[in-house]
Amino acid sequence: LVIDMTKSIAVGLDVGGTKILAGIVSEDGEVLDSQRYAMDRTDQASSLASIHHALDDFLQRLSNGLEPAGIGIGTVGQIDSRNGVWVQAMNIPITTPVPLAEILRVKHGLPVSLDNDVHAATLAELKFGVGKRYDDFIYINVGTGIAIGMVSGRRLIRGAANYAGEVGHMSIEPDGDVCVCGRRGCLESIASGGGMIAYAHSRLPAFPSSTLAPHAVTMTSSLIFTEAEKGDVFALMIRERALQALGTAIVNVANLLNPEAVILGGGVLRDAWIIKRLKVYAGTHCLPAVSRSLIHFDTTDLDTQQVGLLGAASLVKEVKTWN
Amino acid sequence: LVIDMTKSIAVGLDVGGTKILAGIVSEDGEVLDSQRYAMDRTDQASSLASIHHALDDFLQRLSNGLEPAGIGIGTVGQIDSRNGVWVQAMNIPITTPVPLAEILRVKHGLPVSLDNDVHAATLAELKFGVGKRYDDFIYINVGTGIAIGMVSGRRLIRGAANYAGEVGHMSIEPDGDVCVCGRRGCLESIASGGGMIAYAHSRLPAFPSSTLAPHAVTMTSSLIFTEAEKGDVFALMIRERALQALGTAIVNVANLLNPEAVILGGGVLRDAWIIKRLKVYAGTHCLPAVSRSLIHFDTTDLDTQQVGLLGAASLVKEVKTWN
Repeated sequence: LVIDMTKSIAVGLDVGGTKILAGIVSEDGEVLDSQRYAMDRTDQASSLASIHHALDDFLQRLSNGLEPAGIGIGTVGQIDSRNGVWVQAMNIPITTPVPLAEILRVKHGLPVSLDNDVHAATLAELKFGVGKRYDDFIYINVGTGIAIGMVSGRRLIRGAANYAGEVGHMSIEPDGDVCVCGRRGCLESIASGGGMIAYAHSRLPAFPSSTLAPHAVTMTSSLIFTEAEKGDVFALMIRERALQALGTAIVNVANLLNPEAVILGGGVLRDAWIIKRLKVYAGTHCLPAVSRSLIHFDTTDLDTQQVGLLGAASLVKEVKTWN
Repeated sequence: LVIDMTKSIAVGLDVGGTKILAGIVSEDGEVLDSQRYAMDRTDQASSLASIHHALDDFLQRLSNGLEPAGIGIGTVGQIDSRNGVWVQAMNIPITTPVPLAEILRVKHGLPVSLDNDVHAATLAELKFGVGKRYDDFIYINVGTGIAIGMVSGRRLIRGAANYAGEVGHMSIEPDGDVCVCGRRGCLESIASGGGMIAYAHSRLPAFPSSTLAPHAVTMTSSLIFTEAEKGDVFALMIRERALQALGTAIVNVANLLNPEAVILGGGVLRDAWIIKRLKVYAGTHCLPAVSRSLIHFDTTDLDTQQVGLLGAASLVKEVKTWN
């Protein structure tokens, strides 16, 4: 490991439900070293212990004269970024608020910043991705759920409680199924990986001859896409409904925010033809002045394995600057 | 007219389709003097001549030692605020882009700022209204059309072409009527004054005994509200559909932006019970963390006759500061 000591570096911790990725990132977004750790999310204590273990071990490995500018942590759930408090999360069981930034700052003697994974990924886009070229953009993450990061005039839109970005609960079908949030026909219940799987389960009895039927227990969004591609009518119906909902939501948000770029991240949207279809849909359905502004529409340029880590490390400088 | 000469003042010009309001506004938002002028919107030339006349006359009346910091103009349509260009408008017929700020700056020797009326009103809220207390809020203007001003961290969200805020073209009913923008069931086509009137016209033949029937030619949104109040089923149907759509859009935007305050402006929403109903709807339909942040939900505190003027004058300082 050879590091250019003239450049500032930061430690990033990408904390997910199944693993923790720790890394050291240079100011130009190069991942100089990284290490994967296990996440034991049995309960809140085991989850926090996993984070402590990962950070202790990773910092120990680094302790040969390196001086990181700080530690940035991106994770799931609701985060009070200003005070560095992990307020609550579901995918990792955080039920009691934890002042994680302060605990780790005292322990390691470094500035610590904390934010949610989508804000972190959006900041990675701002510093190292398309945001180098565009001042106003949106980053949409479609995975198990759907969330959005919004940048206006090079600033992340955070909202009053750092909770901005819940596009997954935009109403798309007013008469649709009831969502976990209590409303009907939310984007997430139609177009997220989790939503497509739940919909497939609930409607499968009506499509007994669908090629999805034998996979009822092991359903995945990528299986739905594969079977749709092969021509299964039920799988096609789920896919088309999801893409229509996603197109509608993107146009709604673009009309609202007038971005230059729409960046698609997350595991569900990988196929080039899907991106192209959504791009054409947005170009023809946004208001004319909005369409003219929207000059970039694509998946992220950043390595999808590293974007969480880059985002986490990006938080280190961010926390010093946002109001 | 007695003016405290220690305070900075600005000239505001609120340019609408039917009139122009010119005024002088102090740095704490007091309208020290104002004058109403006619707008002749026969064509682009007559519209611009009306603006020139209003400004010439108003500045002449003021020329007793007053030194305004600048001139701010709020008007309709698409405006390139950075370059002070009125790109296009429909309600006032601007079909060829006009570099209005530069023309007036040369003519009057004062800095001139230009923006659309909803951005201007939102800045008035930020400087003189609820924005004194809240860093993140949205301002919704429901009139002939529907637009929104969004403030994040005390900054107006402008978008790439200063065109952010087109919530009127958020899709609410995917199978609804075709909107002027080409999509179906847009908020504006359901809940704006213009949308309610158009809907009433198109459906009136099916409700020949409605008390709205005799008013087909002179339909207004306030007539629809009055007849709904008296119990006319058709009028009630239009009103309920409009309020439901508006509630849905407000919740969608609040979930996206996590504001502390929602401010309702515009002529359509005046009744206290409507505000209360929308407030309860938002409180119960937003995500829990979004609801907890949303502590203020009301009509504007500012004088509705003056908000356009205050907003126009607010542009004077604004243009120096936004990136």
